Amino acid sequence: YDLVIANGTVATAADVYRADVGIKDGVIVALGRGLTGAAETIDAAGRYVLPGGIDSHVHIAQPSGEGIVMADDFESGTRSALFGGNTTVLPFCIQEKGEALRTALTDYHAKAAGNCYTDVSFHLVISDPSEAVLGQELPAAVADGYTSFKIFMTYEALRLNDAEILATMDTARRTGALVMVHCENEDAIRFLVDKFTGEGHLEPRTHATTRPVVVEREATHRAISLAEVVDVPVVIVHVSNGAAMEEIARARARGRPIVGETCPQYLMLTEDDLSGMDWEGAKFVCSPPPRDKAEQTNIWRGIETGIFDLFSSDHCPFRYDDDRGKLNPKGRNDFRHIPNGIPGVETRLSILFSEGVMKGRIDLPRFVAMTATNHAKTYGLYPRKGTIAVGSDADIAIWDPDAERVIRHAELHDAADYSPYEGIAVRGRPETMILRGKVMVRDGALVGEKGYGAYLPRGLSDRAKPPTE
Amino acid sequence: YDLVIANGTVATAADVYRADVGIKDGVIVALGRGLTGAAETIDAAGRYVLPGGIDSHVHIAQPSGEGIVMADDFESGTRSALFGGNTTVLPFCIQEKGEALRTALTDYHAKAAGNCYTDVSFHLVISDPSEAVLGQELPAAVADGYTSFKIFMTYEALRLNDAEILATMDTARRTGALVMVHCENEDAIRFLVDKFTGEGHLEPRTHATTRPVVVEREATHRAISLAEVVDVPVVIVHVSNGAAMEEIARARARGRPIVGETCPQYLMLTEDDLSGMDWEGAKFVCSPPPRDKAEQTNIWRGIETGIFDLFSSDHCPFRYDDDRGKLNPKGRNDFRHIPNGIPGVETRLSILFSEGVMKGRIDLPRFVAMTATNHAKTYGLYPRKGTIAVGSDADIAIWDPDAERVIRHAELHDAADYSPYEGIAVRGRPETMILRGKVMVRDGALVGEKGYGAYLPRGLSDRAKPPTE
Amino acid sequence: YDLVIANGTVATAADVYRADVGIKDGVIVALGRGLTGAAETIDAAGRYVLPGGIDSHVHIAQPSGEGIVMADDFESGTRSALFGGNTTVLPFCIQEKGEALRTALTDYHAKAAGNCYTDVSFHLVISDPSEAVLGQELPAAVADGYTSFKIFMTYEALRLNDAEILATMDTARRTGALVMVHCENEDAIRFLVDKFTGEGHLEPRTHATTRPVVVEREATHRAISLAEVVDVPVVIVHVSNGAAMEEIARARARGRPIVGETCPQYLMLTEDDLSGMDWEGAKFVCSPPPRDKAEQTNIWRGIETGIFDLFSSDHCPFRYDDDRGKLNPKGRNDFRHIPNGIPGVETRLSILFSEGVMKGRIDLPRFVAMTATNHAKTYGLYPRKGTIAVGSDADIAIWDPDAERVIRHAELHDAADYSPYEGIAVRGRPETMILRGKVMVRDGALVGEKGYGAYLPRGLSDRAKPPTE
Amino acid sequence: YDLVIANGTVATAADVYRADVGIKDGVIVALGRGLTGAAETIDAAGRYVLPGGIDSHVHIAQPSGEGIVMADDFESGTRSALFGGNTTVLPFCIQEKGEALRTALTDYHAKAAGNCYTDVSFHLVISDPSEAVLGQELPAAVADGYTSFKIFMTYEALRLNDAEILATMDTARRTGALVMVHCENEDAIRFLVDKFTGEGHLEPRTHATTRPVVVEREATHRAISLAEVVDVPVVIVHVSNGAAMEEIARARARGRPIVGETCPQYLMLTEDDLSGMDWEGAKFVCSPPPRDKAEQTNIWRGIETGIFDLFSSDHCPFRYDDDRGKLNPKGRNDFRHIPNGIPGVETRLSILFSEGVMKGRIDLPRFVAMTATNHAKTYGLYPRKGTIAVGSDADIAIWDPDAERVIRHAELHDAADYSPYEGIAVRGRPETMILRGKVMVRDGALVGEKGYGAYLPRGLSDRAKPPTE
Ligand SMILES: [Zn+2]
Ligand SMILES: [Zn+2]
Ligand SMILES: [Zn+2]
Ligand SMILES: [Zn+2]
Ligand SMILES: [Zn+2]
Ligand SMILES: [Zn+2]
Ligand SMILES: [Zn+2]
Ligand SMILES: [Zn+2]
Repeated sequence: YDLVIANGTVATAADVYRADVGIKDGVIVALGRGLTGAAETIDAAGRYVLPGGIDSHVHIAQPSGEGIVMADDFESGTRSALFGGNTTVLPFCIQEKGEALRTALTDYHAKAAGNCYTDVSFHLVISDPSEAVLGQELPAAVADGYTSFKIFMTYEALRLNDAEILATMDTARRTGALVMVHCENEDAIRFLVDKFTGEGHLEPRTHATTRPVVVEREATHRAISLAEVVDVPVVIVHVSNGAAMEEIARARARGRPIVGETCPQYLMLTEDDLSGMDWEGAKFVCSPPPRDKAEQTNIWRGIETGIFDLFSSDHCPFRYDDDRGKLNPKGRNDFRHIPNGIPGVETRLSILFSEGVMKGRIDLPRFVAMTATNHAKTYGLYPRKGTIAVGSDADIAIWDPDAERVIRHAELHDAADYSPYEGIAVRGRPETMILRGKVMVRDGALVGEKGYGAYLPRGLSDRAKPPTE
Repeated sequence: YDLVIANGTVATAADVYRADVGIKDGVIVALGRGLTGAAETIDAAGRYVLPGGIDSHVHIAQPSGEGIVMADDFESGTRSALFGGNTTVLPFCIQEKGEALRTALTDYHAKAAGNCYTDVSFHLVISDPSEAVLGQELPAAVADGYTSFKIFMTYEALRLNDAEILATMDTARRTGALVMVHCENEDAIRFLVDKFTGEGHLEPRTHATTRPVVVEREATHRAISLAEVVDVPVVIVHVSNGAAMEEIARARARGRPIVGETCPQYLMLTEDDLSGMDWEGAKFVCSPPPRDKAEQTNIWRGIETGIFDLFSSDHCPFRYDDDRGKLNPKGRNDFRHIPNGIPGVETRLSILFSEGVMKGRIDLPRFVAMTATNHAKTYGLYPRKGTIAVGSDADIAIWDPDAERVIRHAELHDAADYSPYEGIAVRGRPETMILRGKVMVRDGALVGEKGYGAYLPRGLSDRAKPPTE
Repeated sequence: YDLVIANGTVATAADVYRADVGIKDGVIVALGRGLTGAAETIDAAGRYVLPGGIDSHVHIAQPSGEGIVMADDFESGTRSALFGGNTTVLPFCIQEKGEALRTALTDYHAKAAGNCYTDVSFHLVISDPSEAVLGQELPAAVADGYTSFKIFMTYEALRLNDAEILATMDTARRTGALVMVHCENEDAIRFLVDKFTGEGHLEPRTHATTRPVVVEREATHRAISLAEVVDVPVVIVHVSNGAAMEEIARARARGRPIVGETCPQYLMLTEDDLSGMDWEGAKFVCSPPPRDKAEQTNIWRGIETGIFDLFSSDHCPFRYDDDRGKLNPKGRNDFRHIPNGIPGVETRLSILFSEGVMKGRIDLPRFVAMTATNHAKTYGLYPRKGTIAVGSDADIAIWDPDAERVIRHAELHDAADYSPYEGIAVRGRPETMILRGKVMVRDGALVGEKGYGAYLPRGLSDRAKPPTE
Repeated sequence: YDLVIANGTVATAADVYRADVGIKDGVIVALGRGLTGAAETIDAAGRYVLPGGIDSHVHIAQPSGEGIVMADDFESGTRSALFGGNTTVLPFCIQEKGEALRTALTDYHAKAAGNCYTDVSFHLVISDPSEAVLGQELPAAVADGYTSFKIFMTYEALRLNDAEILATMDTARRTGALVMVHCENEDAIRFLVDKFTGEGHLEPRTHATTRPVVVEREATHRAISLAEVVDVPVVIVHVSNGAAMEEIARARARGRPIVGETCPQYLMLTEDDLSGMDWEGAKFVCSPPPRDKAEQTNIWRGIETGIFDLFSSDHCPFRYDDDRGKLNPKGRNDFRHIPNGIPGVETRLSILFSEGVMKGRIDLPRFVAMTATNHAKTYGLYPRKGTIAVGSDADIAIWDPDAERVIRHAELHDAADYSPYEGIAVRGRPETMILRGKVMVRDGALVGEKGYGAYLPRGLSDRAKPPTE
């Protein structure tokens, strides 16, 4: 073996057991006890040996509008992800209107190449579903391993109308690609924004007021219904509330294959956070917005009962005190110009581990499933990624379950200047990170090299099969 | 008294009791026993004395596309309505794109003037919600007594997008007008039509296949959600199935004021009727299409339990064997060219009376409420219309509950050439019809004059109040 | 006419209109305008002329356990009811274990005879469904006009087990009687009482803690299910929360005929009221207990949307500061000995009129339906009682909608020593009360005689018909 | 290694991967590729290597009433289980009324000792929850490894009333034992049996008629509610229909920890099977009875969406053509005397593998979870049993996924004389069975010895933790 992780407690999405993990050529080749003959052995006694986290919903180096710059590029973004316990991230490669997918992908690959600390793969964002895109470009991209894409029902520059959604979903059906949908009704938001800004409300809190639960519930039901018309599975991303969860549950009861995703902000934040003094609320502006305490309970229920398959960060980092970030010249006076999104790729796993596993809400296999295995299965990376099994990549996070700390942005590794979770106490910490058999972080210190992280073409989703009759 | 209806059993939406009805100057002035001193007395012993039916959803003399002519004008349409037990009908005055509401109304008034056997009032159809229309024309029309309007989520020429729906609903909110919505997702229908016609399916049955329950459920939830964003009540017209009913029930449980309407076709027909031999299925092409037996049971449940407030005909008559009707040159080969709609203004009341009251599903007050009183209250005609009470117009139908007959188009009074309900046996018959104190039909024979039916400007809806907090 | 009520605004469960009401021999004989020739005329200009309230759920002079005496006998109870706007009340005649129904009825008639200010009729309470009772006594009682009875799922002395409930419901099915069910699971309450008293909790608040929503929801679903097995309608009395409401809604969606009742305490009180200082919480001990603010909103929703047909007081009066009332020697130290029940027959109508009608939550016809008409129809008193129609008893309440006052027990007419609604401001007041044509209260002063109120045998319920297939 | 299973495709509840399995001393000690140094190697190329099935709901050698004998003793029952792909079964040790648990256990152990081909463990059935039983005997039994017990809401000899259920659940709460509930309302069944037998219906089909969905739904809701009062988790066994599933889903949405179980008969049989000619319907008499095609679809939905955690056989075998079986002297004329239960321990896995996995309804990890892993976790056998992981018992079924055959009782290994699944074609077959490292069945031939199967004391359930607040 090149490497043996000895004496730890291995967990998968099903099992928890004591075993050594034997690694050779970057791959897990043996699980057993007392494995010997290793070039290097890491003692993991008292530690959990988990599949490296997969964060299938992050935004890195993404064009964000005039004068605005996303805080993280691939270097800082994947470094932060790695320290947060992840070995793979899936950011979005956005097609701009009129742009060929190939162009968008080429540009995005160029940003990533040589800069990554974790493995990466890209979802496409389809903003211009022209005949050429749906007829040739997208099928070609799917064949090349870009097997999932996101579409938006909000944001003026990105939203598709129902006819476009149907046509795009139909391409997904023909190619086996998996569709992710951002569900908020743009017209309804626009109506409310006009109403509330007309009454003089420009402060960050109004961002939440103008994106109430009803606009998410409406769009969720519509996305599910359009997918039902086309007969494709669909991922409902970043679900924030119980009403949208109910739409997922109702659809499943009708036999529809729906994948549900939620994020840490819907467990830990509320819309009241957007009311901070001195425009501090801007730090929490994201879409959908955080809701209230009752909805946090609903989201926990969804995690416990299986409404949600995926727990992602929706990491979308902007600096706060920065002319090109949250407090840009327009944004500091008008919430409409505050870039949407918050950082979180480094805190996702610690929050769910601490609040979920250590507080007894979920067990360790469910943690692994929601943070790694299900992401791999959903997005065509399984069984290479997302589990600890013979033949899988040796992507491993060694967790100390007892480590206690308080989240401080000063100790994080992204390029933003704040964390929305500042000051939250957590138990558990990914202490050593291994990517394809190579130790990248050892006892909290970076030892891996930038650029070791590689791009991953993907197969079709395990979820993208039609429902049984 | 000018007229006394003696010895009958009066029914209102609440009560059933023996009383004479005393009428003077077209108005009910007394309810009592042994009323004397009448110029004329009608003996109604053994009969029900009911408020004349109000059919708040009919299409008369409506432009229907090139080469297609609606079968009924105001003369035949109101004559048929009258024989069916109605004293008031509310057809739709359609704004064409670019047309001023005033122009549409003037034209439509011209068609009605002097030709009616029942009283009439008009809903508007808003197809072009321009700034001028929403800012000036529609508020002016509401002030003039056109206090309700319908909007469409289907039909390429009529559909509004979500932004337009929101703006139009907002005008309703400001003016107190009531919005009716035809809920079917046009883009989804278009997708399915392209799919099925692409596979060579052109027969009438494909009309139903391409408008499945999911497209109605989606649009129903969206209409309700948009009304929730604006905070206005909304009428969901012609509900055909249990899933759409569930959306209404869920909305009410959230405190939303929703009015639900259904129609005879959803009780008596199924999509199998669209599969008739020799293109006979064209006779049953309407939107939403009839569903199946299980959905008929659902619709009955909705009538019994109060999901529905209104039972209307959605009378929308086209001749079948006619170059300008169902079998027009294009329509006889391709369902996409079959005009949508079926006749029913004359059969609505008999069907609900026979299947509902006489079969014990509902009681007489519920029949009166769903066919008359609720229509008057919903559309601003109450208390002048819709009940038997002191001060109300003497619009009365005297029903023989025991008369048995079979529905035959040959005995109906519309200008179509068929009835979708041909051959159905019914018990109960409106035998004598009185409009504002004047006998219009006596023992089944027309005695009233064309043109006695008048136009009714309307007040604001009793339903168009915001929900309690 | 013996009496004409002139110039008022008459309201029924369907209609609101200006009319004079002509009364002769205790019966409404005419509705019209400008009625003349009356021995007496009451000017009701600016007033609502409503059917006298029917309170179909009151407890009067009911045996209440050793050492406990119910505050009201028929004299004080019906006097209080009358001043509260009622002309008919339906108290319960309780069968004790082993007692013949005839004996119970004879005793109860003796208490009422000659003492009533309103008309009265009796529900039976079946506590001992022996073969003799179900085989002979109960059918005989139904035939004699005792056409409804209540059964209990709680209270050790009264509860029936499932087999007894089924047998009793089956007798109802055979005789056409209507079953009312008090839905709380006695065993579960007993379990919780043992648990909490074992932990030393003896204060009034524990009454609520040991009767949580789950015990009501369970029993509600069970009662509905047992009625489904037997195939009878059922009245779910005094519903306190949204979960029990949901059971009713679900049952109706399955086609089950369920009548729902709620009461003022579930709109106006909360369990926090049971935490009053110095054992004041005892004043609010009733079963089911009041819940919280969220449940109050649920109950309003149920009133607005038709979950509830009946709004009753569940008047069950005990004196507070009294050795034979709430503060009996044992009850002042241990909630288990506080008699269950609160007064409310005089405040029921004012609360719903003020909070419901005057605050715009419901309209006047719905008020009339929920407080009078539906009671008459449900319990076989219609059309004699419950409406203003030709041929109905002239039981009328003349309401001044503008009168403002604060509820003070000092101004009420019952024999308790407190009101749970003390201090609540209300708009609207029943000013003049007429029973079968006789003025009983004139402008707030008692003018009628004790004993004019009569006993009413009843017909079968309009609701007690099997559901349509 | 003592044994290596080479070249197979291993599946767990999370993963599917190619690996050899190395076994020593009856335990899995290594997972890897190219494992060498084995005393014996089984080539599993082209085969699935799955955890041996755990059937946590079987009845073996259970006293069944006077004159009736259960077909299987431990020898035939575990042999049949083994051939069906199982390595562990959990039958029920029934306490008779008045019997000490220790006595019941001693007797039952005596029946099993030396006779088993699979490992076994026992659930208790508590029929007499006396103070001694709940206070001492049951806690002692839990401490000894009998950590789960079933209670009945039906069967006169076994049913507990609500107070008894609460007390028994409370003991479960205190001891950490897990409660399983058979949910059917005995009183309601009794009512219907009396009704239908009174009308002369004695044929097998009436068994289903008198146990309709409503009696199961009622009891399911009640069991869940009582568990909510006590605050314990609960297993709802053998769920047969969508209404009961809805109760589970609703409870989970309230945060209740509910385990759901279903069985093959609810996927493959319908109540029409009880109508067979010549009393053949007796072969399908079990409780709850099979329902209809629509309910089969509901049950599949529950398997697909996670309503169900467990798929068990409820094997409860009686011979058909036998004086001590289905056709006993009384039973051949009256369904009330037909013993309840059908065999199925040998067909359970093949049915779910063929209809579920091979038809694409579920994937292999879900199959493993529902047939093995979840049983082990639910009943305190995990991680020793139920998975393929280092340190777990080497209980392994080697499946040939391509084998096609038709179920014939002649080829099964139980001691009944029929299979309810006779004639059903299935794909997939457990070809070689290994129990604790020992080959028991090789290529379809029995090679293991009777008595190698051992008794397993169990730990507390992973599920028996209180819900998070
Ligand atoms: Zn998004
Ligand atoms: Zn995002
Ligand atoms: Zn329409
Ligand atoms: Zn229409
Ligand atoms: Zn009660
Ligand atoms: Zn009561
Ligand atoms: Zn059972
Ligand atoms: Zn069983």
